[in-house]
Amino acid sequence: MKQHDHTWLIVGLGLLGGRYAQILSARGYTVLGITRSADTLQYALDHGYIAAGKTGDFTDLLEKADRVVLGLYPTTLLSWVREYGRYLRPGTFVTDVCGVKRGVVEPVQALLPAGVEFIASHPMAGRETSGIAHCAEVRFTDANFIITPTPANTPAGIAWCRALAETLGFARISELSPAAHDRMIGYVSQLCHAIAVSLMCASDNSELAMYTGDSFRDLTRIARINDKMWAELFLWNKDNLIDEIELFSGALQDLKDRLVAGDRAGLEEMFRLSTARRAAFDET
Amino acid sequence: MKQHDHTWLIVGLGLLGGRYAQILSARGYTVLGITRSADTLQYALDHGYIAAGKTGDFTDLLEKADRVVLGLYPTTLLSWVREYGRYLRPGTFVTDVCGVKRGVVEPVQALLPAGVEFIASHPMAGRETSGIAHCAEVRFTDANFIITPTPANTPAGIAWCRALAETLGFARISELSPAAHDRMIGYVSQLCHAIAVSLMCASDNSELAMYTGDSFRDLTRIARINDKMWAELFLWNKDNLIDEIELFSGALQDLKDRLVAGDRAGLEEMFRLSTARRAAFDET
Repeated sequence: MKQHDHTWLIVGLGLLGGRYAQILSARGYTVLGITRSADTLQYALDHGYIAAGKTGDFTDLLEKADRVVLGLYPTTLLSWVREYGRYLRPGTFVTDVCGVKRGVVEPVQALLPAGVEFIASHPMAGRETSGIAHCAEVRFTDANFIITPTPANTPAGIAWCRALAETLGFARISELSPAAHDRMIGYVSQLCHAIAVSLMCASDNSELAMYTGDSFRDLTRIARINDKMWAELFLWNKDNLIDEIELFSGALQDLKDRLVAGDRAGLEEMFRLSTARRAAFDET
Repeated sequence: MKQHDHTWLIVGLGLLGGRYAQILSARGYTVLGITRSADTLQYALDHGYIAAGKTGDFTDLLEKADRVVLGLYPTTLLSWVREYGRYLRPGTFVTDVCGVKRGVVEPVQALLPAGVEFIASHPMAGRETSGIAHCAEVRFTDANFIITPTPANTPAGIAWCRALAETLGFARISELSPAAHDRMIGYVSQLCHAIAVSLMCASDNSELAMYTGDSFRDLTRIARINDKMWAELFLWNKDNLIDEIELFSGALQDLKDRLVAGDRAGLEEMFRLSTARRAAFDET
């Protein structure tokens, strides 16, 4: 990635935006930052994550940058692009970190000026924590980075986004359409979070904490979530997530029916299927 | 535990029975073993887990032992006690390793001869594996050991069972009634397994394996289960497990309803509740 002559701008210095800024600065890139919070800005400057930054009146930074990462939640991202996208220079590459894609990618591509290319991507490296003070804890080295190109993207834009993922150190980089991404994420991430949240909300189980072992703790670890961000992710992907909840609920109902009927062979059959499918996962 | 003058008998040399035999022999106790499998018996003898053992015609071993662990699944355990319990000597203490208690404890106590005391217990240290060849992998040092006494038990019997758990190295030893144990286990263990199994059975997700991160893998790790044992556990506790599945399904339905309605504030409220409850778990 020979782009040391480029100027990077990270908009939104949260957990992921902050981490991108930290890594890119450490690799010698010129990184500017925009955040609404004066404390966050000061933290980023104090830790050398950015060379300069602003909390407002930042159109001059937009005109300087030619490599932009939007580290914002989907709703904020759309309104930000609507208001400030026009200040970006032609030739600029832009990506994001959103965990949902359909509602974001094409609208943002339509809003940006001619010559500014938005190559959407999703770094699958969430954590229970949020905010720049935790960003050094984020690990990309075991994580997936998904690029979601559309017909509006160029080979050069996609190659830039892939090179960014390599610089950030992601374990696996792949491409999916925005629709395929959202179906995938509805199952492998959002459904799991919906289940963990429901398990904790189902009853006040605090008196059972002393009896919980690994299985319960593993299953509910992700029930500690950032409420604002996850409401965004769920609502922007609600059709897929509703489908997944219904599929899962059907399987759970099936298990319950076998239990009610005392159908030992039927239960054992489900257990063998789940065991075989899960074993295949461990081989990948 | 000054019981080196006692003779232990482990009936069923599976994952847990094998582990008990291994630890007790290593501590210098005289341990005998009974198993249906000639291979298992040979393995246990070869590895020094037992001093002697048999696969049949074992009434002489029953007459020698005065400390007995029944390492059998509930249904097998009941039929074993019905057939062989009469050979145990008065003064003998007996325990088990079953993961369900109501259907086991009082029937076994009623079947045993006068003077033979059954103090039921549940070592909460399951694994995905089974069989004596894996027993050395079982770790008791982080695990709960639950004793489920009834009015038929004596202080001496309960103290023996507690001392056994200490010898085995369990992290926490506690007492619950059989009914309270089964309610607890329906929630903290069986419901989690029902969820993990249903998640794997809901759809053929093998093409998504490459995208799964920690959350999906943590949630489904326990979907690899021993089909025979878990059918036993589920069926012996079906009333509690059905209640828990219904409570959980209600919470998931509630989440889905909020999603369908686009109720952002309602979703955020659930996320804050799950986060607060789960955070409290991490403090225990």
